[in-house]
Amino acid sequence: MLKNKSFFSEIPLLKQARPDSLQRLAELSKRQTGKKGYLFFSQNDIADWFYVIENGWVKLFSETINGEEIILDLLTKHDIFGETTFFHNNSYSFHAEMIEPGEIWMIPTTWIQAEIQNYPPFAMAMMTHMAHLKTSRDKQIEHHTIQDASQRLACFLLRLYDGQKSGPIKLMLPIDKHLIANYLGMKPETFSRALIKLNKELDLEIEGMQIRINHLNDLVTYTCQTCSDVFPCFDRQHCKSYAQA
Amino acid sequence: MLKNKSFFSEIPLLKQARPDSLQRLAELSKRQTGKKGYLFFSQNDIADWFYVIENGWVKLFSETINGEEIILDLLTKHDIFGETTFFHNNSYSFHAEMIEPGEIWMIPTTWIQAEIQNYPPFAMAMMTHMAHLKTSRDKQIEHHTIQDASQRLACFLLRLYDGQKSGPIKLMLPIDKHLIANYLGMKPETFSRALIKLNKELDLEIEGMQIRINHLNDLVTYTCQTCSDVFPCFDRQHCKSYAQA
Repeated sequence: MLKNKSFFSEIPLLKQARPDSLQRLAELSKRQTGKKGYLFFSQNDIADWFYVIENGWVKLFSETINGEEIILDLLTKHDIFGETTFFHNNSYSFHAEMIEPGEIWMIPTTWIQAEIQNYPPFAMAMMTHMAHLKTSRDKQIEHHTIQDASQRLACFLLRLYDGQKSGPIKLMLPIDKHLIANYLGMKPETFSRALIKLNKELDLEIEGMQIRINHLNDLVTYTCQTCSDVFPCFDRQHCKSYAQA
Repeated sequence: MLKNKSFFSEIPLLKQARPDSLQRLAELSKRQTGKKGYLFFSQNDIADWFYVIENGWVKLFSETINGEEIILDLLTKHDIFGETTFFHNNSYSFHAEMIEPGEIWMIPTTWIQAEIQNYPPFAMAMMTHMAHLKTSRDKQIEHHTIQDASQRLACFLLRLYDGQKSGPIKLMLPIDKHLIANYLGMKPETFSRALIKLNKELDLEIEGMQIRINHLNDLVTYTCQTCSDVFPCFDRQHCKSYAQA
């Protein structure tokens, strides 16, 4: 068995392919090392590949006509991107760039297309995956609409926490602050003010990229009252191994 | 042939079902008249039905734990809602309420589930539909992040324009201003200020619910430079018959 087959069988969507298809995927896939700043593709490029992250961080973003960048998603270990291009005239609907270096697997989009067409249970798995993508976007819209900057930042921090430890929680910000600020829809100076507010009002300690949450329940109450989900929420990210200091 | 079969065959997703399935859908469907304020379902309700709008307006919304409402989408003629619940443990992931009265068709979710499972081309149509839903959410996030209030409002107005007429364009706001404001993520007073700004800077005329765009190109330049799409964009809404005064 190819070593990468066992990696792909950990990915929630891909593991629902037939065993022989997963074997074929492992044979077709290519591993590449992404340096910081590496652009995988631009919006409207022809989509020949989709990608699975082994480690590192990737931003998906769009760019306005007057040149401003909007981060649509921040992805890391075990996340997939470019997998739905088959339904967008085989072109990407956003740009994708490496923001923290790591290893990424490329897989031909023809593989996912064939598996969807030939194996109905995989088509169902794909639809479930797409439904969750859309629901997580609904949540982003909800937070952009209703939460203030410090609540959005607190929500981002709570998603880094793996729920395993008790007592004070130490986290490490996994990517540059200005990227987190952009993703949360705020300017860097607003991000700094939000951090200061969390420090003053909720005793959150900040030292460079290190964060210490001294009162988890207070932070949850402060943040999650402005959300339609109860903490810990279904779509919390999977960046535990990056975040735990 | 049932009269409603021809209605359903106008709906982009549903018309891709097999003819005999569309006939069955027409037999299973129920038409109801929705009064303003009628709640179709709440978040987490068991999803036995999905809905197709014949006319009127519906808001999809979530509610935070402390009781604030966020409008996720505004839907009208030929729009569908509740159709993806099959992938959310058969429960709705938002609330749905009638905001302008009209006629709505209810269809059992078992119908769409069976058609997806038994007819692969319909499963493909469903995935294309879901990909577009997600892309339109990406666009909403982009606009919430980068556009100011007057640009978001101008974008909403441009989506009401059907592109057919030349010269000054008369539009009618199809729903209450406070609902549009909530959907655009702004308070009613911010909405009013945005209207005044568009009037002063771009000669947009406002009289109650009537809007007159005197300089379309100026409005497009003002708005669409802060978007990654070129006007007229792919996801403009289909509310022409409501909006044209």
